[in-house]
Amino acid sequence: MTKIKCTVAYDGTLFHGYQVQPGKRTVQREIEAVLSRMHHGQLVKIAASGRTDAGVHAFGQVFHFETPLHIPEDRWTLALNSLLPNDIYVRQAEEVSEQFHARYDVKKKEYRYRLLTRPEPDLFRRAYTTHIKQPLDVDAMNLAAAAILGTHDFSCFCAANTDIKDKVRTIYYLSVRQEKDDETVIRIVGSGFLYQMVRIITGTLLDVGIYKITPDRVAEIIDGRDRQAASATAPPQGLTLWGVTY
Amino acid sequence: MTKIKCTVAYDGTLFHGYQVQPGKRTVQREIEAVLSRMHHGQLVKIAASGRTDAGVHAFGQVFHFETPLHIPEDRWTLALNSLLPNDIYVRQAEEVSEQFHARYDVKKKEYRYRLLTRPEPDLFRRAYTTHIKQPLDVDAMNLAAAAILGTHDFSCFCAANTDIKDKVRTIYYLSVRQEKDDETVIRIVGSGFLYQMVRIITGTLLDVGIYKITPDRVAEIIDGRDRQAASATAPPQGLTLWGVTY
Repeated sequence: MTKIKCTVAYDGTLFHGYQVQPGKRTVQREIEAVLSRMHHGQLVKIAASGRTDAGVHAFGQVFHFETPLHIPEDRWTLALNSLLPNDIYVRQAEEVSEQFHARYDVKKKEYRYRLLTRPEPDLFRRAYTTHIKQPLDVDAMNLAAAAILGTHDFSCFCAANTDIKDKVRTIYYLSVRQEKDDETVIRIVGSGFLYQMVRIITGTLLDVGIYKITPDRVAEIIDGRDRQAASATAPPQGLTLWGVTY
Repeated sequence: MTKIKCTVAYDGTLFHGYQVQPGKRTVQREIEAVLSRMHHGQLVKIAASGRTDAGVHAFGQVFHFETPLHIPEDRWTLALNSLLPNDIYVRQAEEVSEQFHARYDVKKKEYRYRLLTRPEPDLFRRAYTTHIKQPLDVDAMNLAAAAILGTHDFSCFCAANTDIKDKVRTIYYLSVRQEKDDETVIRIVGSGFLYQMVRIITGTLLDVGIYKITPDRVAEIIDGRDRQAASATAPPQGLTLWGVTY
Protein backbone atom coordinates (compact mmCIF):
# COMPACT_ATOMS: atom_id res chain seq x y z
CA MET A 1 0.00 0.00 0.00
CA THR A 2 1.13 3.55 -0.77
CA LYS A 3 0.16 6.54 1.37
CA ILE A 4 -0.79 9.68 -0.57
CA LYS A 5 -1.01 13.16 0.97
CA CYS A 6 -3.22 15.65 -0.91
CA THR A 7 -3.58 19.42 -0.58
CA VAL A 8 -7.10 20.42 -1.57
CA ALA A 9 -9.05 23.65 -2.07
CA TYR A 10 -12.81 23.81 -1.83
CA ASP A 11 -15.56 26.37 -1.97
CA GLY A 12 -17.63 25.64 1.12
CA THR A 13 -20.76 27.40 -0.16
CA LEU A 14 -22.64 24.35 -1.38
CA PHE A 15 -21.34 21.83 1.18
CA HIS A 16 -22.73 20.82 4.56
CA GLY A 17 -19.21 21.10 5.87
CA TYR A 18 -16.23 18.78 5.47
CA GLN A 19 -17.21 15.70 7.40
CA VAL A 20 -19.45 12.89 6.14
CA GLN A 21 -23.04 13.14 7.35
CA PRO A 22 -25.77 10.78 6.15
CA GLY A 23 -27.69 12.15 3.18
CA LYS A 24 -25.71 15.42 3.00
CA ARG A 25 -23.33 16.74 0.37
CA THR A 26 -20.00 17.07 2.18
CA VAL A 27 -16.41 17.48 0.98
CA GLN A 28 -15.24 14.19 2.49
CA ARG A 29 -18.11 12.32 0.89
CA GLU A 30 -17.39 13.73 -2.59
CA ILE A 31 -13.69 12.91 -2.38
CA GLU A 32 -14.27 9.40 -1.00
CA ALA A 33 -16.84 8.74 -3.73
CA VAL A 34 -14.31 9.68 -6.42
CA LEU A 35 -11.53 7.61 -4.80
CA SER A 36 -13.83 4.63 -4.46
CA ARG A 37 -14.70 4.95 -8.15
CA MET A 38 -10.98 4.96 -9.00
CA HIS A 39 -10.60 1.81 -6.87
CA HIS A 40 -13.35 -0.06 -8.73
CA GLY A 41 -15.95 0.43 -6.03
CA GLN A 42 -13.73 -0.49 -3.10
CA LEU A 43 -14.32 1.90 -0.17
CA VAL A 44 -11.41 4.33 0.35
CA LYS A 45 -11.45 6.43 3.54
CA ILE A 46 -9.59 9.71 3.78
CA ALA A 47 -8.26 11.41 6.94
CA ALA A 48 -8.05 15.21 6.91
CA SER A 49 -6.20 17.69 9.12
CA GLY A 50 -9.56 18.47 10.71
CA ARG A 51 -13.08 19.32 9.73
CA THR A 52 -14.49 22.61 8.52
CA ASP A 53 -18.04 23.83 9.12
CA ALA A 54 -20.76 24.36 6.53
CA GLY A 55 -19.96 27.43 4.43
CA VAL A 56 -16.28 27.55 5.46
CA HIS A 57 -13.78 27.38 2.58
CA ALA A 58 -10.37 25.80 2.24
CA PHE A 59 -7.40 26.84 0.16
CA GLY A 60 -4.95 24.36 1.68
CA GLN A 61 -6.83 21.60 3.50
CA VAL A 62 -4.75 18.39 3.71
CA PHE A 63 -5.90 14.74 3.74
CA HIS A 64 -4.28 11.36 3.25
CA PHE A 65 -5.38 7.92 2.11
CA GLU A 66 -3.84 4.56 1.37
CA THR A 67 -3.98 2.89 -2.00
CA PRO A 68 -2.81 -0.30 -3.72
CA LEU A 69 -2.71 1.60 -7.06
CA HIS A 70 0.57 2.61 -8.64
CA ILE A 71 -0.01 6.07 -10.08
CA PRO A 72 2.70 8.78 -10.41
CA GLU A 73 2.24 11.72 -8.02
CA ASP A 74 1.29 14.28 -10.67
CA ARG A 75 -1.21 11.89 -12.25
CA TRP A 76 -3.18 11.70 -8.99
CA THR A 77 -4.13 15.38 -9.21
CA LEU A 78 -5.17 15.05 -12.85
CA ALA A 79 -7.20 11.90 -12.20
CA LEU A 80 -8.91 13.27 -9.08
CA ASN A 81 -9.68 16.70 -10.60
CA SER A 82 -11.17 15.14 -13.72
CA LEU A 83 -13.71 13.31 -11.55
CA LEU A 84 -14.31 15.79 -8.71
CA PRO A 85 -17.09 18.44 -8.87
CA ASN A 86 -15.91 21.92 -9.80
CA ASP A 87 -16.05 23.25 -6.22
CA ILE A 88 -13.24 20.92 -5.10
CA TYR A 89 -9.73 21.13 -6.56
CA VAL A 90 -6.76 19.00 -5.58
CA ARG A 91 -3.74 21.31 -5.75
CA GLN A 92 -1.05 18.74 -4.98
CA ALA A 93 -0.58 15.02 -4.34
CA GLU A 94 2.57 13.40 -3.03
CA GLU A 95 3.67 10.04 -1.67
CA VAL A 96 4.43 10.10 2.04
CA SER A 97 5.83 7.59 4.51
CA GLU A 98 3.41 5.18 6.15
CA GLN A 99 3.96 7.03 9.47
CA PHE A 100 2.40 10.27 8.16
CA HIS A 101 -1.03 11.20 9.51
CA ALA A 102 -2.86 14.28 8.20
CA ARG A 103 -4.53 14.93 11.55
CA TYR A 104 -2.10 13.76 14.24
CA ASP A 105 1.02 15.26 12.64
CA VAL A 106 -0.28 18.84 12.25
CA LYS A 107 2.27 21.38 13.52
CA LYS A 108 0.50 24.60 12.53
CA LYS A 109 -2.64 25.69 10.80
CA GLU A 110 -3.39 29.03 9.20
CA TYR A 111 -6.86 30.49 8.78
CA ARG A 112 -7.86 33.74 7.09
CA TYR A 113 -11.08 35.64 7.64
CA ARG A 114 -12.14 38.23 5.04
CA LEU A 115 -14.30 41.17 6.09
CA LEU A 116 -16.06 43.40 3.57
CA THR A 117 -15.91 46.81 5.25
CA ARG A 118 -18.10 49.36 3.52
CA PRO A 119 -21.72 50.49 3.80
CA GLU A 120 -22.99 48.61 0.73
CA PRO A 121 -22.98 44.81 0.40
CA ASP A 122 -21.20 43.19 -2.56
CA LEU A 123 -23.12 40.42 -4.27
CA PHE A 124 -20.01 39.00 -5.88
CA ARG A 125 -18.14 38.56 -2.61
CA ARG A 126 -21.10 37.50 -0.47
CA ALA A 127 -19.94 33.85 -0.36
CA TYR A 128 -16.35 34.73 0.60
CA THR A 129 -16.59 37.69 2.96
CA THR A 130 -18.61 38.80 5.95
CA HIS A 131 -20.14 42.22 5.48
CA ILE A 132 -19.51 44.76 8.26
CA LYS A 133 -21.28 48.06 7.61
CA GLN A 134 -19.53 50.08 10.31
CA PRO A 135 -15.92 51.25 9.96
CA LEU A 136 -13.48 49.08 11.94
CA ASP A 137 -10.68 50.36 14.15
CA VAL A 138 -7.93 48.06 12.87
CA ASP A 139 -5.37 49.41 15.37
CA ALA A 140 -7.64 48.58 18.30
CA MET A 141 -8.21 45.10 16.84
CA ASN A 142 -4.45 44.52 16.60
CA LEU A 143 -4.02 45.61 20.22
CA ALA A 144 -6.59 43.02 21.21
CA ALA A 145 -4.93 40.44 18.96
CA ALA A 146 -1.69 40.83 20.91
CA ALA A 147 -3.45 39.49 24.02
CA ILE A 148 -4.46 36.33 22.13
CA LEU A 149 -0.91 35.51 20.99
CA GLY A 150 0.94 32.78 22.88
CA THR A 151 -0.14 29.70 24.82
CA HIS A 152 -3.42 29.91 26.74
CA ASP A 153 -6.37 27.88 27.85
CA PHE A 154 -8.82 29.06 25.19
CA SER A 155 -12.05 27.77 26.78
CA CYS A 156 -13.52 31.24 26.22
CA PHE A 157 -13.14 30.85 22.44
CA CYS A 158 -14.51 27.30 22.18
CA ALA A 159 -18.10 26.52 21.20
CA ALA A 160 -19.95 24.87 24.08
CA ASN A 161 -20.83 21.65 22.26
CA THR A 162 -17.45 19.90 22.24
CA ASP A 163 -15.97 16.85 23.98
CA ILE A 164 -12.40 18.15 23.91
CA LYS A 165 -10.97 18.42 27.44
CA ASP A 166 -7.58 20.03 26.81
CA LYS A 167 -8.26 23.56 25.65
CA VAL A 168 -4.69 24.81 25.72
CA ARG A 169 -3.48 25.96 22.31
CA THR A 170 -0.70 28.22 21.04
CA ILE A 171 -1.34 31.14 18.71
CA TYR A 172 1.86 32.00 16.81
CA TYR A 173 0.60 34.82 14.64
CA LEU A 174 -2.50 36.99 14.51
CA SER A 175 -2.85 40.11 12.40
CA VAL A 176 -5.66 42.36 11.22
CA ARG A 177 -4.89 44.24 8.05
CA GLN A 178 -6.81 46.41 5.67
CA GLU A 179 -5.84 44.82 2.34
CA LYS A 180 -8.07 46.78 -0.04
CA ASP A 181 -10.17 49.92 0.26
CA ASP A 182 -13.08 47.80 1.34
CA GLU A 183 -11.54 44.60 2.68
CA THR A 184 -9.92 43.78 6.01
CA VAL A 185 -8.33 40.38 6.53
CA ILE A 186 -7.63 38.57 9.79
CA ARG A 187 -4.79 36.01 9.60
CA ILE A 188 -4.23 33.56 12.39
CA VAL A 189 -1.67 30.79 12.76
CA GLY A 190 -1.85 28.37 15.65
CA SER A 191 -0.83 24.94 16.87
CA GLY A 192 -4.43 23.89 16.51
CA PHE A 193 -7.89 25.35 16.92
CA LEU A 194 -10.86 24.43 19.08
CA TYR A 195 -14.36 24.08 17.67
CA GLN A 196 -15.36 27.42 16.05
CA MET A 197 -12.38 29.08 17.73
CA VAL A 198 -11.40 31.25 14.75
CA ARG A 199 -14.97 32.45 14.27
CA ILE A 200 -15.35 33.32 17.97
CA ILE A 201 -12.00 35.15 17.97
CA THR A 202 -13.16 37.02 14.86
CA GLY A 203 -16.45 37.94 16.52
CA THR A 204 -14.55 39.23 19.56
CA LEU A 205 -12.08 41.24 17.46
CA LEU A 206 -15.03 42.71 15.55
CA ASP A 207 -16.57 43.89 18.82
CA VAL A 208 -13.26 45.58 19.60
CA GLY A 209 -13.19 47.12 16.12
CA ILE A 210 -16.60 48.75 16.60
CA TYR A 211 -15.79 49.87 20.20
CA LYS A 212 -18.28 47.51 21.79
CA ILE A 213 -15.48 46.19 24.00
CA THR A 214 -12.02 47.60 24.70
CA PRO A 215 -8.79 45.89 23.60
CA ASP A 216 -7.87 45.42 27.29
CA ARG A 217 -10.99 43.41 27.89
CA VAL A 218 -9.73 40.53 25.71
CA ALA A 219 -7.03 39.41 28.18
CA GLU A 220 -9.71 39.29 30.89
CA ILE A 221 -11.98 37.23 28.65
CA ILE A 222 -9.18 34.70 28.08
CA ASP A 223 -8.37 34.51 31.81
CA GLY A 224 -12.04 33.98 32.66
CA ARG A 225 -12.28 30.83 30.47
CA ASP A 226 -15.98 31.45 29.97
CA ARG A 227 -17.46 31.18 26.47
CA GLN A 228 -20.29 33.52 27.53
CA ALA A 229 -17.82 36.37 28.12
CA ALA A 230 -16.52 36.29 24.53
CA SER A 231 -18.50 37.66 21.58
CA ALA A 232 -20.84 35.98 19.12
CA THR A 233 -19.48 33.49 16.58
CA ALA A 234 -18.77 35.25 13.27
CA PRO A 235 -20.52 33.75 10.20
CA PRO A 236 -18.79 30.91 8.32
CA GLN A 237 -18.56 32.35 4.81
CA GLY A 238 -15.71 34.79 5.55
CA LEU A 239 -13.47 31.97 6.78
CA THR A 240 -10.90 29.95 4.82
CA LEU A 241 -8.59 27.22 6.08
CA TRP A 242 -5.53 28.64 4.39
CA GLY A 243 -2.89 26.00 5.00
CA VAL A 244 -1.55 23.24 7.23
CA THR A 245 2.10 22.75 8.20
CA TYR A 246 3.60 19.37 9.18
CA MET B 1 -48.79 56.62 -11.60
CA THR B 2 -45.09 57.22 -10.85
CA LYS B 3 -42.31 55.80 -12.99
CA ILE B 4 -39.32 54.41 -11.06
CA LYS B 5 -35.93 53.66 -12.61
CA CYS B 6 -33.79 51.12 -10.76
CA THR B 7 -30.13 50.19 -11.10
CA VAL B 8 -29.66 46.58 -10.10
CA ALA B 9 -26.75 44.18 -9.61
CA TYR B 10 -27.16 40.42 -9.80
CA ASP B 11 -25.03 37.33 -9.66
CA GLY B 12 -26.09 35.35 -12.73
CA THR B 13 -24.80 32.01 -11.43
CA LEU B 14 -28.09 30.62 -10.17
CA PHE B 15 -30.42 32.26 -12.73
CA HIS B 16 -31.65 31.01 -16.07
CA GLY B 17 -30.85 34.44 -17.42
CA TYR B 18 -32.70 37.72 -17.03
CA GLN B 19 -35.92 37.22 -18.94
CA VAL B 20 -39.01 35.43 -17.64
CA GLN B 21 -39.30 31.82 -18.82
CA PRO B 22 -42.04 29.48 -17.57
CA GLY B 23 -40.92 27.41 -14.60
CA LYS B 24 -37.40 28.87 -14.47
CA ARG B 25 -35.72 31.05 -11.85
CA THR B 26 -34.92 34.28 -13.70
CA VAL B 27 -33.98 37.77 -12.52
CA GLN B 28 -37.07 39.42 -14.03
CA ARG B 29 -39.33 36.86 -12.39
CA GLU B 30 -37.81 37.40 -8.93
CA ILE B 31 -38.07 41.18 -9.17
CA GLU B 32 -41.62 41.13 -10.51
CA ALA B 33 -42.64 38.69 -7.76
CA VAL B 34 -41.31 41.08 -5.10
CA LEU B 35 -42.95 44.13 -6.72
CA SER B 36 -46.26 42.29 -7.01
CA ARG B 37 -46.02 41.41 -3.33
CA MET B 38 -45.45 45.10 -2.51
CA HIS B 39 -48.53 45.93 -4.62
CA HIS B 40 -50.77 43.50 -2.73
CA GLY B 41 -50.68 40.83 -5.41
CA GLN B 42 -51.30 43.16 -8.34
CA LEU B 43 -49.05 42.19 -11.28
CA VAL B 44 -46.22 44.71 -11.85
CA LYS B 45 -44.19 44.30 -15.05
CA ILE B 46 -40.66 45.67 -15.33
CA ALA B 47 -38.83 46.71 -18.51
CA ALA B 48 -35.04 46.33 -18.51
CA SER B 49 -32.33 47.79 -20.76
CA GLY B 50 -32.07 44.34 -22.33
CA ARG B 51 -31.75 40.73 -21.32
CA THR B 52 -28.69 38.87 -20.12
CA ASP B 53 -28.02 35.15 -20.71
CA ALA B 54 -27.86 32.42 -18.10
CA GLY B 55 -24.68 32.77 -16.02
CA VAL B 56 -24.04 36.38 -17.09
CA HIS B 57 -23.81 38.89 -14.23
CA ALA B 58 -24.87 42.52 -13.90
CA PHE B 59 -23.38 45.31 -11.86
CA GLY B 60 -25.47 48.08 -13.41
CA GLN B 61 -28.51 46.63 -15.17
CA VAL B 62 -31.37 49.16 -15.38
CA PHE B 63 -35.11 48.56 -15.35
CA HIS B 64 -38.23 50.68 -14.87
CA PHE B 65 -41.77 50.11 -13.68
CA GLU B 66 -44.87 52.14 -12.94
CA THR B 67 -46.53 52.28 -9.57
CA PRO B 68 -49.49 53.92 -7.82
CA LEU B 69 -47.57 53.76 -4.52
CA HIS B 70 -46.06 56.87 -2.94
CA ILE B 71 -42.70 55.79 -1.53
CA PRO B 72 -39.62 58.07 -1.25
CA GLU B 73 -36.78 57.16 -3.64
CA ASP B 74 -34.37 55.86 -1.01
CA ARG B 75 -37.10 53.78 0.61
CA TRP B 76 -37.62 51.82 -2.62
CA THR B 77 -34.12 50.33 -2.44
CA LEU B 78 -34.58 49.37 1.21
CA ALA B 79 -37.99 47.84 0.60
CA LEU B 80 -36.92 45.91 -2.50
CA ASN B 81 -33.65 44.65 -1.01
CA SER B 82 -35.37 43.45 2.14
CA LEU B 83 -37.58 41.19 0.01
CA LEU B 84 -35.24 40.19 -2.83
CA PRO B 85 -33.05 37.05 -2.67
CA ASN B 86 -29.41 37.69 -1.79
CA ASP B 87 -28.16 37.33 -5.38
CA ILE B 88 -30.05 40.45 -6.50
CA TYR B 89 -29.31 43.90 -5.07
CA VAL B 90 -30.98 47.16 -6.07
CA ARG B 91 -28.24 49.78 -5.96
CA GLN B 92 -30.38 52.83 -6.71
CA ALA B 93 -33.98 53.83 -7.32
CA GLU B 94 -35.14 57.19 -8.67
CA GLU B 95 -38.29 58.75 -10.01
CA VAL B 96 -38.16 59.49 -13.73
CA SER B 97 -40.47 61.22 -16.17
CA GLU B 98 -43.22 59.20 -17.78
CA GLN B 99 -41.34 59.43 -21.10
CA PHE B 100 -38.37 57.42 -19.82
CA HIS B 101 -37.97 53.88 -21.15
CA ALA B 102 -35.19 51.60 -19.85
CA ARG B 103 -34.83 49.83 -23.18
CA TYR B 104 -35.63 52.39 -25.88
CA ASP B 105 -33.67 55.26 -24.33
CA VAL B 106 -30.33 53.44 -23.96
CA LYS B 107 -27.44 55.57 -25.27
CA LYS B 108 -24.51 53.34 -24.30
CA LYS B 109 -23.88 50.09 -22.55
CA GLU B 110 -20.69 48.87 -20.96
CA TYR B 111 -19.76 45.22 -20.51
CA ARG B 112 -16.69 43.78 -18.83
CA TYR B 113 -15.29 40.30 -19.36
CA ARG B 114 -12.87 38.88 -16.78
CA LEU B 115 -10.29 36.30 -17.82
CA LEU B 116 -8.32 34.26 -15.30
CA THR B 117 -4.95 33.87 -17.00
CA ARG B 118 -2.73 31.34 -15.27
CA PRO B 119 -2.15 27.59 -15.54
CA GLU B 120 -4.17 26.64 -12.45
CA PRO B 121 -7.92 27.22 -12.09
CA ASP B 122 -9.25 29.25 -9.12
CA LEU B 123 -12.26 27.79 -7.38
CA PHE B 124 -13.19 31.08 -5.79
CA ARG B 125 -13.36 32.98 -9.08
CA ARG B 126 -14.88 30.18 -11.18
CA ALA B 127 -18.31 31.86 -11.29
CA TYR B 128 -16.91 35.28 -12.26
CA THR B 129 -14.04 34.59 -14.65
CA THR B 130 -13.27 32.40 -17.62
CA HIS B 131 -10.11 30.38 -17.17
CA ILE B 132 -7.53 30.61 -19.97
CA LYS B 133 -4.53 28.37 -19.32
CA GLN B 134 -2.29 29.75 -22.06
CA PRO B 135 -0.59 33.15 -21.75
CA LEU B 136 -2.40 35.87 -23.73
CA ASP B 137 -0.72 38.44 -25.98
CA VAL B 138 -2.57 41.50 -24.73
CA ASP B 139 -0.89 43.82 -27.25
CA ALA B 140 -2.08 41.67 -30.15
CA MET B 141 -5.58 41.65 -28.66
CA ASN B 142 -5.59 45.45 -28.44
CA LEU B 143 -4.48 45.68 -32.07
CA ALA B 144 -7.43 43.52 -33.03
CA ALA B 145 -9.72 45.56 -30.77
CA ALA B 146 -8.86 48.70 -32.77
CA ALA B 147 -10.49 47.12 -35.84
CA ILE B 148 -13.74 46.61 -33.93
CA LEU B 149 -14.01 50.26 -32.82
CA GLY B 150 -16.42 52.46 -34.72
CA THR B 151 -19.65 51.84 -36.62
CA HIS B 152 -19.96 48.54 -38.50
CA ASP B 153 -22.42 45.92 -39.58
CA PHE B 154 -21.59 43.35 -36.89
CA SER B 155 -23.37 40.33 -38.45
CA CYS B 156 -20.15 38.35 -37.89
CA PHE B 157 -20.45 38.84 -34.12
CA CYS B 158 -24.15 38.01 -33.82
CA ALA B 159 -25.45 34.59 -32.80
CA ALA B 160 -27.41 32.98 -35.64
CA ASN B 161 -30.69 32.59 -33.78
CA THR B 162 -31.92 36.17 -33.79
CA ASP B 163 -34.71 38.07 -35.51
CA ILE B 164 -32.91 41.41 -35.48
CA LYS B 165 -32.45 42.78 -39.01
CA ASP B 166 -30.35 45.89 -38.45
CA LYS B 167 -26.96 44.70 -37.31
CA VAL B 168 -25.19 48.06 -37.44
CA ARG B 169 -23.84 49.11 -34.04
CA THR B 170 -21.19 51.55 -32.83
CA ILE B 171 -18.37 50.50 -30.49
CA TYR B 172 -17.04 53.55 -28.64
CA TYR B 173 -14.41 51.92 -26.48
CA LEU B 174 -12.74 48.52 -26.33
CA SER B 175 -9.68 47.73 -24.22
CA VAL B 176 -7.87 44.62 -23.06
CA ARG B 177 -5.85 45.14 -19.90
CA GLN B 178 -3.98 42.93 -17.51
CA GLU B 179 -5.37 44.14 -14.19
CA LYS B 180 -3.74 41.67 -11.81
CA ASP B 181 -0.95 39.12 -12.10
CA ASP B 182 -3.48 36.55 -13.14
CA GLU B 183 -6.44 38.55 -14.47
CA THR B 184 -7.05 40.23 -17.80
CA VAL B 185 -10.18 42.32 -18.31
CA ILE B 186 -11.90 43.25 -21.57
CA ARG B 187 -13.99 46.44 -21.37
CA ILE B 188 -16.35 47.33 -24.17
CA VAL B 189 -18.72 50.27 -24.56
CA GLY B 190 -21.17 50.42 -27.43
CA SER B 191 -24.42 51.95 -28.63
CA GLY B 192 -26.00 48.53 -28.21
CA PHE B 193 -25.07 44.89 -28.60
CA LEU B 194 -26.44 42.07 -30.73
CA TYR B 195 -27.29 38.67 -29.29
CA GLN B 196 -24.12 37.21 -27.67
CA MET B 197 -22.04 39.89 -29.39
CA VAL B 198 -19.72 40.57 -26.44
CA ARG B 199 -19.07 36.86 -25.93
CA ILE B 200 -18.29 36.33 -29.64
CA ILE B 201 -15.99 39.37 -29.68
CA THR B 202 -14.28 37.97 -26.58
CA GLY B 203 -13.88 34.56 -28.22
CA THR B 204 -12.36 36.23 -31.28
CA LEU B 205 -9.98 38.38 -29.21
CA LEU B 206 -8.94 35.26 -27.29
CA ASP B 207 -8.03 33.53 -30.55
CA VAL B 208 -5.88 36.56 -31.37
CA GLY B 209 -4.31 36.43 -27.91
CA ILE B 210 -3.20 32.81 -28.35
CA TYR B 211 -2.01 33.41 -31.98
CA LYS B 212 -4.73 31.28 -33.53
CA ILE B 213 -5.65 34.22 -35.77
CA THR B 214 -3.74 37.43 -36.51
CA PRO B 215 -4.95 40.89 -35.41
CA ASP B 216 -5.29 41.84 -39.13
CA ARG B 217 -7.76 39.03 -39.65
CA VAL B 218 -10.39 40.73 -37.48
CA ALA B 219 -11.12 43.53 -39.98
CA GLU B 220 -11.67 40.88 -42.65
CA ILE B 221 -14.02 38.96 -40.38
CA ILE B 222 -16.09 42.13 -39.81
CA ASP B 223 -16.19 42.91 -43.55
CA GLY B 224 -17.28 39.35 -44.36
CA ARG B 225 -20.42 39.61 -42.16
CA ASP B 226 -20.34 35.85 -41.62
CA ARG B 227 -20.78 34.45 -38.10
CA GLN B 228 -18.90 31.30 -39.13
CA ALA B 229 -15.73 33.31 -39.79
CA ALA B 230 -15.57 34.65 -36.22
CA SER B 231 -14.50 32.52 -33.25
CA ALA B 232 -16.50 30.48 -30.76
CA THR B 233 -18.74 32.23 -28.22
CA ALA B 234 -16.86 32.69 -24.93
CA PRO B 235 -18.59 31.22 -21.83
CA PRO B 236 -21.12 33.37 -19.93
CA GLN B 237 -19.63 33.41 -16.44
CA GLY B 238 -16.80 35.86 -17.23
CA LEU B 239 -19.27 38.48 -18.46
CA THR B 240 -20.86 41.34 -16.52
CA LEU B 241 -23.23 44.02 -17.78
CA TRP B 242 -21.36 46.86 -16.12
CA GLY B 243 -23.58 49.84 -16.74
CA VAL B 244 -26.13 51.58 -18.95
CA THR B 245 -26.05 55.24 -19.96
CA TYR B 246 -29.19 57.20 -20.93
